[in-house]
Amino acid sequence: MTANSTNLTRIRVRYCECDPMGVAHHAAYIPWLEIGRTELLRQSGETYAALERSGLLLVVVKLDVRYRRPVRYDDVVEVRTEWSGGSRVKIEHTYEVLVVEPGANTPESVPFVAAAASTTLGCIDRDGKIRELPAWLASAR
Amino acid sequence: MTANSTNLTRIRVRYCECDPMGVAHHAAYIPWLEIGRTELLRQSGETYAALERSGLLLVVVKLDVRYRRPVRYDDVVEVRTEWSGGSRVKIEHTYEVLVVEPGANTPESVPFVAAAASTTLGCIDRDGKIRELPAWLASAR
Amino acid sequence: MTANSTNLTRIRVRYCECDPMGVAHHAAYIPWLEIGRTELLRQSGETYAALERSGLLLVVVKLDVRYRRPVRYDDVVEVRTEWSGGSRVKIEHTYEVLVVEPGANTPESVPFVAAAASTTLGCIDRDGKIRELPAWLASAR
Amino acid sequence: MTANSTNLTRIRVRYCECDPMGVAHHAAYIPWLEIGRTELLRQSGETYAALERSGLLLVVVKLDVRYRRPVRYDDVVEVRTEWSGGSRVKIEHTYEVLVVEPGANTPESVPFVAAAASTTLGCIDRDGKIRELPAWLASAR
Repeated sequence: MTANSTNLTRIRVRYCECDPMGVAHHAAYIPWLEIGRTELLRQSGETYAALERSGLLLVVVKLDVRYRRPVRYDDVVEVRTEWSGGSRVKIEHTYEVLVVEPGANTPESVPFVAAAASTTLGCIDRDGKIRELPAWLASAR
Repeated sequence: MTANSTNLTRIRVRYCECDPMGVAHHAAYIPWLEIGRTELLRQSGETYAALERSGLLLVVVKLDVRYRRPVRYDDVVEVRTEWSGGSRVKIEHTYEVLVVEPGANTPESVPFVAAAASTTLGCIDRDGKIRELPAWLASAR
Repeated sequence: MTANSTNLTRIRVRYCECDPMGVAHHAAYIPWLEIGRTELLRQSGETYAALERSGLLLVVVKLDVRYRRPVRYDDVVEVRTEWSGGSRVKIEHTYEVLVVEPGANTPESVPFVAAAASTTLGCIDRDGKIRELPAWLASAR
Repeated sequence: MTANSTNLTRIRVRYCECDPMGVAHHAAYIPWLEIGRTELLRQSGETYAALERSGLLLVVVKLDVRYRRPVRYDDVVEVRTEWSGGSRVKIEHTYEVLVVEPGANTPESVPFVAAAASTTLGCIDRDGKIRELPAWLASAR
């Protein structure tokens, strides 16, 4: 594990991400995880946008989320993303989503862990064929 | 105006489309309008998916919405879409969004008009160049 | 397992649910699962909207998805939802998402399984306290 | 017009906000506008979350957007929000969305104006009754 193996990114919860329960809808967390692993990639010196331009795509093949405590509108969450494994054609990440700065509706002391998650990405080309991860990406891990 | 010039499509409001006010978020209506004009196109015998395969894209250049009364979770709305004008390179639509079947949280008598909208689409190719609408689409109007 | 234990619901993939890869974004599947379990509940004679009005909320505590094959714009998917277990305070569902009607961009023979998923819901009240499922819901399973 | 009358907020375009054309979907801009006016409110010393806690809601009654040039994945946009008018019960805002930092897929020189918009918000209470804006909000304008 290198200095590049963890990323911390803060995201303010949008009003439209919250549902009639007054909390962030469970589907809203999924883009936050994507932002987390994207920023981890950027931290290694490359971007996902550049990877796609080179003809390689990373597609989610597995997604697991455990929701522990609610996140509310205007809370600031911190997504903590780590490379956790993989192979020549796959990357695994784990995530924690913490509330680190509470909005006006969140009474709890912060920080607290709101959710934990893991994903597996597969590397493919534009024709959907499985491809090896580029060397810089495999070594960044 | 032909028999193909109006489309009525019903959509049940999703939980994730509703916000902490307990009503559909104003951004949630925008995909409903897109569904309305897409179904109007399908009614004319073609699909937007096929249009894109042929290399032509319809992009939204103007969007106006007036929100009159709230729409709630599990309501069924009817989107009424009409071709309302255009040119060789543009299509204009107008829309009404009505609540036609109330969910458990909607006390009003139905139907009622919840919103009215209009859009203008421009026809371009994959390089972003303005292109003429295909003949079948111009004549469907 | 009763006649009410499975629900099949068809959903046409929205343009805005698809991403620059030209396929439905992995987050777009999550609302489809919610629609599946909501329709399963409706099939049992009640609605989730009515449950919320009675003061009980069902919150997602666990979500697992396996993405197998891409889903594309204008495809019609069928969500097959089953009650798969639970307790006095939890409900478990399993899901399959199949492409059953292809849009213009989907070359494969249909139907095919695009994804499989499972969720666990916990029953709480508006104060966030764990509550027993109502009898009709426990017996519907 | 006071020092508080304009807000500049930067937002990185999310992958899931982009569509098969490879650009941000037109509906994705709507939450960006909401973020802009929310941050303008925060700049005046209050938050929208606190306003809602006090029992007042601001609902969108009018939304107009002109889309001029595409925004792409990983671009950073700057939303420039201004109070532009209103009454005792309404607030009007105008917006410009500029691309200020290009992602790997955006060839144009930055900054450029991608869209312009305006909204009108009405002030209501939880029963949907029209209410006067609180003094601090009327004077912040």
